[in-house]
Formats: sequence, C-alpha cells, structure tokens
Amino acid sequence: MRIIRLAGGITAVPGIRAAGIHCGIKPEGKDLALIVSDPPAVAAGLFTQNKVKSESLKLTLNHIKYGLTKAILINSGNANCCTGPEGYNHARELTHLLADYLNTSPHSILLASTGIIGKRLPLNKIKDSLPRLIQELSTSGGGNAAEAILTTDKIKKEVAFSCDYQGLVFHVGGMAKGAGMIHPHLATMLCFLATDLNIEKTLLQKALKRAVDESFNRITIDGDTSTNDTVICLANGRAANERIRRDGGLYRAFQEVLSQVTLILAQLLLRDGEGVNKVIEIRVRGAETVKAARLIARTVANSLLVKTAFYGNDPNWGRLMMAIGRAGCRIIPEKIDISLDNLYIVKGGMEVKGAWEAEAARILAQDRFCVNIDLKMGKGEAIIWTCDLSVEYVKFNSHYTT
Amino acid sequence: MRIIRLAGGITAVPGIRAAGIHCGIKPEGKDLALIVSDPPAVAAGLFTQNKVKSESLKLTLNHIKYGLTKAILINSGNANCCTGPEGYNHARELTHLLADYLNTSPHSILLASTGIIGKRLPLNKIKDSLPRLIQELSTSGGGNAAEAILTTDKIKKEVAFSCDYQGLVFHVGGMAKGAGMIHPHLATMLCFLATDLNIEKTLLQKALKRAVDESFNRITIDGDTSTNDTVICLANGRAANERIRRDGGLYRAFQEVLSQVTLILAQLLLRDGEGVNKVIEIRVRGAETVKAARLIARTVANSLLVKTAFYGNDPNWGRLMMAIGRAGCRIIPEKIDISLDNLYIVKGGMEVKGAWEAEAARILAQDRFCVNIDLKMGKGEAIIWTCDLSVEYVKFNSHYTT
Repeated sequence: MRIIRLAGGITAVPGIRAAGIHCGIKPEGKDLALIVSDPPAVAAGLFTQNKVKSESLKLTLNHIKYGLTKAILINSGNANCCTGPEGYNHARELTHLLADYLNTSPHSILLASTGIIGKRLPLNKIKDSLPRLIQELSTSGGGNAAEAILTTDKIKKEVAFSCDYQGLVFHVGGMAKGAGMIHPHLATMLCFLATDLNIEKTLLQKALKRAVDESFNRITIDGDTSTNDTVICLANGRAANERIRRDGGLYRAFQEVLSQVTLILAQLLLRDGEGVNKVIEIRVRGAETVKAARLIARTVANSLLVKTAFYGNDPNWGRLMMAIGRAGCRIIPEKIDISLDNLYIVKGGMEVKGAWEAEAARILAQDRFCVNIDLKMGKGEAIIWTCDLSVEYVKFNSHYTT
Repeated sequence: MRIIRLAGGITAVPGIRAAGIHCGIKPEGKDLALIVSDPPAVAAGLFTQNKVKSESLKLTLNHIKYGLTKAILINSGNANCCTGPEGYNHARELTHLLADYLNTSPHSILLASTGIIGKRLPLNKIKDSLPRLIQELSTSGGGNAAEAILTTDKIKKEVAFSCDYQGLVFHVGGMAKGAGMIHPHLATMLCFLATDLNIEKTLLQKALKRAVDESFNRITIDGDTSTNDTVICLANGRAANERIRRDGGLYRAFQEVLSQVTLILAQLLLRDGEGVNKVIEIRVRGAETVKAARLIARTVANSLLVKTAFYGNDPNWGRLMMAIGRAGCRIIPEKIDISLDNLYIVKGGMEVKGAWEAEAARILAQDRFCVNIDLKMGKGEAIIWTCDLSVEYVKFNSHYTT
C-alpha cells in the first residue's frame, strides 16, 4: 500500500465540492460552509453525548438515519442551541430551501452549527446567501470551507491522502475546527471527512468510530462534550471499487488512512487551542484495567494544578501523584514510576535522587513532551493528550460573548 | 439556647492551649503548631479519600483509633507525603519525642502536615524546636497556631462560640487552612476543632461528619481531595456535663454550634483561595435525585468555561447549559430555569426576553452571588460553593515549588 499526502483537504477527494463565504453571522470572516457530494454519499457520524443538544444537531441526528447524503451545511458564529422549537424550525427551513436549490430531498441535507449558545439563528442572512454559496462550490473550495467553520481557532485545519491499495486508488480528506481548551467539554469540535470508496454504512460507521477513538476521543471525551460536537464521514463510491462489505484488506487499508487523517486533525486541534503553549501526552501503563488507566490519565490531564505547573515549566511531581491518587482507582503509591520523556523523576513513589531538576525543566520548556506513569498493577494502558493552562487562556475565555 | 461569638479560636475553649512558632521548614513565617488538651480529649476525625496519603496522616489514622488525644502537632511547608518508610519513621519519632516531653503515650499524639509533596521532612529542625514550642503553649496561643498552619493562605482563619444550653455553658472553637483554588483536590485543607463538652466518640464523629458535609464538603468533596486533608475535633469534657450518649437536646445544640463554626471556617477558606475574586453559590433544585443535583452542581462549579466567564462578569448562560448537559444526568433542557440571585436569565431552556444583560453584569461584578438552576424533574437539591478562575490563579500556581 502506498500512501501520499495531498495538498488541501476534503475537496481532494473526487466527487466532493465545497465553498465557504461570509454571510454576516459573524461581524467579519467566513461563517458559512457547504460540502456537496456527487453522487450522494453513504454517511456515518458521531455526535455529542451532551444532554443539551443544538437544534441543528437534532435535525442532523434525524436526517442521517435516512438514505444517502447530498450535502452538509455548516455555520459558525451561532450554535443554534437552546433556541427551542423556533431553532429546530430554522434548521428544517434551511434544509428544505437548500434541497430545492440542489434538487434533492431535505433528508439528504445534514447541518452543523458552532458558536454562541442561546441566540436566535440569523435565518434570513443564511437563506439569502445560499445562492451565492452554491455558486462558489468548487473542487478547490475545501480551504474556504475549512475557514468558514472556524470560531476562535487561529488556523484552518485540513488534510488529505491518496492511497494505492493493490492497484485501487482511493482518497480520504477532511477538515476540523476545535479551539477552546481542547479537553473534556471545553470546545465544540466539528470534523467533516470524505472518501471516494464504496463502503457499507455499518462498516463506515465502524471505521469512523475507531479512528475517532484513537484521535479526537483522546482529547475530547464521550459523555463529556460540547452541545454541538459532530464528526461526519461521507463515502461516495467514486473510486468504483466493489462495495466493502467485510473487515478485509481494503477495509483495513481504509481504516489506516482514515485514522491517520483524524490523528493529524486532532493534533492540529490541540496545537491551536486557546492559549495553548505546549501539548502534553499523558501515557499511563500498568493499571489494573484499561478503564482505570483512562480514568487516571484523564484525571492527571484535567488537573488544574498539573496544567498550571506545565505552563510554568515546574517539575512539581507531587501534583502528579496527588492527581493519580484522587482518580479513585486502586493503586499502590509505593510502586509508581514517573518519567518526563526518558527522564525518570519518580521511582517507587518517591523522588529520584540526584540533580534532575534542570533536565526536567528543559523537557517541560519544550512545546511537546510526554509524561509516562507506570502503576505496575496490571496491563491497562491509556494515552490522553492535554495542554498547559495559561494566563492567555483565562484572559481569552473571560471575555468571549461580550 | 444563647450563642455568643468569642474572640480567638481554638484556645477560647477551656482546657485547650496552643502555640505556633517558626522552626525553619519554611524560609520565614511560623511553620510549627501545637494544640494540647487538659485533660486528654475524645477525638473524632475525617480524612482525605486520596489513595496517596501523607505519612503523617497515616500515623494519625492509626493513633486516632486508640483512647484519648493529648496533643496535635502540625507543621506547614512540607507535606511529608511520598516520603516512604523514612517519612513514616520521622512521624513516629516526632510523636515519641513529644509524648516524652508531655509525659503521655505516643498514641495520644496526632500529626498533620501540609506543604510540598515528596521532600524529606526536616526532622531535626522540628525536634530541636519542640521544647520552645511547648514553652510557648498558652490559653491565648490559638492565633499563633492558626498562623503556623498556613501555606499560601493570606489570612489566618479562626472562630469560637460559647453557648448556654439550659444553664450549661459550653464552647466550640477552631481554626483552618485552605488556599489552593478551593475546589475538589486543589487545596490541602486542615481544620482543628475543640469543645469542652463531654461526649461519646461515636456521637462526636457523627456531629463532625454532619458539620463537614454542610460546610467543607460543599467546597472540597469526599473522594476528590488532596493527600493531606484532615479535620479533627477534640472534646475534653471540661464543661462537666453528663456525658452525651444520645441524639438529644444537648447533642443537637452542640451540632448546631459545631456546624456554625465549620460553616464560617469554610467561607473564610473560599474567600482566601488563590486568585479568588468572588465566591459563587451554585444551587441546583428540581433534580431527579439528590445525587443528580450534586453531580450537576459540581459539574457547573468545576467548568473552566463557567469559572472564567464569572471572572469576566460575562453572563454567558450557554456555558451553564453546556455544563448542566454534560453532567450525564437525565434532564429535559426545555424545562430548565436559571437565575442569577433573583434575576431570571433562562426560562424553559431559553434566554429570557428583554434587556437583562446590564443587570446580570452588575450581579456578576459582586464579590458574592448565587446561580440558581431549577431542573423541574424532581425533588433533588444541592448547594456547592465555587469561585472564579482568574489570571492571578494561573500565575500563582505555575510557580509554586520553584
């Protein structure tokens, strides 16, 4: 199998056109995106577990159950959340109008929204802009679309690959937006992916689930997400392969490329988080179970005292031990080893002797490093990515709506 | 029942002497405290649920099971945590030495430590200072002791009451230290309480549990605490009442005064948190169960986006809805009402119409306000106190050990 990284993102996939324009939801900058698939695509999706859901998302949850998907309409600047029946009607009206323009059925249109919660969607601005948006659709429009879905992100995030699997060439591309602090519940995460493979819906869903588990779910976690989180993958069959119906070689090749795409997008998300100066990989091994490993990794990754210590290049391993201890899992503190990259700072639950502080501070000053925690209790392992908690983050988030 | 607030704290209780001195664990400031009871007292205690525990605390957990307590020795500046068998031996040595000086048994000595984790306790400095510390003991030494247990706190925290119950006069006094961000796991919380009542150990434990549930546990939560958290209450019987053996009138009078003492200390803790500008009471009602109400209140209280919005006086109710939704409890978003003090900003899951923003911003600019969340699902209620997340907090905690 030969994999080549392509320029661009979702429109590097044959049959996918996209556009992104400014329609006036935000005071400036692109705020409306459209992705269209020719022919209509099989669609798989993963969505927020938050009990409070965007009205746009509710409609998408309904539509994605039906047949094929022709288009995805995305707006930024307004989450269409906590907007009640009126918000749902707005969403429905948009899909009906867009379906008319595209000569398709409303059920083949999916929606996603991101931005401020609780404010009325400026419906007319969007409606009035649809003809212009459709006119802008092109096979090089992925970048504009990737820009139009951003909120507080600093850079657009897109990636695409082509893959030659035993003479069959297929493509996978996508775009994402994140920002927020990039951790449980703190960012609306949107991601739109496409492939030209012909694949059954259940297998597409399975591949997407695994790719997301190994990427976005290491930074934003199920059951602990924003009101609007959405990952959708389209598969339009333009590669003309025999439909993938089982977990065979081609499926696994697709899985590999899809996972690579989501991994790159997740890393871009982390890097672009509000006030993020460094990305930290928390690796827990030797836990009694995988569940325990995950819980401990998340507890460490979410600890404000740990995150502020990272910000200050402070090798305060006591805060790591405290966070490990409060996760509630069975541990034996006297067994625990902790290293920063390859530098051991804790062995057997106690500080390593010798002058390691300067080297530790050097590691923490990098924009990327790894915290390895070995509990020596069992075989459970987990990886979570987190970031430092900076003064800039607080400044930014204390004045978002105003 | 007549209750009078007294000056001072723990030494306002007859039979209690205390002292606080500088022994050199910290570069400056008092760092060693002693509380002595004449006669030895019945003791009750509540301790951290963290799996990583201070060696001093391990010894106290052992000693408090035995007979009466003569004294509590507390050091600040070093947590004696993750210090291994040597740390436990240090703790044991201190209790033996102090027991010799006070002519009592080592089991009648309790210990508490707070400060940096993982550093060797400077044993000799403490040992050498014990004679001086004992010499300083006095019935007006409570303030010095309250000072000596502080770490990053700005002010000492003490309170005392006398109570006349049907002609019987008894006293309850105490001191505490907190700081940190004053929320789950983020501060070592120490609290030492005393009364001159004669009361059975099991009833003293019961009263203490209830008082802590209604005060400290609203800010620092069981199962989610620092490595050294300790609350101890002594009862030395100097009031010469017939021993309290049941949940009668005198017990309830004591409970009321004890709860008042812990409530005041908890509020002082919150107010003195690192970088805290305001204290917010999160009141959830109408949840399906008390457990659900607590979980939702804590999720809101811990949300970084909510806390930074409070810091910025930003009435961003969407963040409240998002936090409510991600708590994982059954809710119907369309039923939720939210008010700030008495100002409704959300009704039926949607923004209240009209120009309420200016009034909301005025409420949020106060140093104390209430967020009321009514889920209208059932009868579950909970109250949690939290604080804003400030730029000062991040600055402070990024440079604590260095």
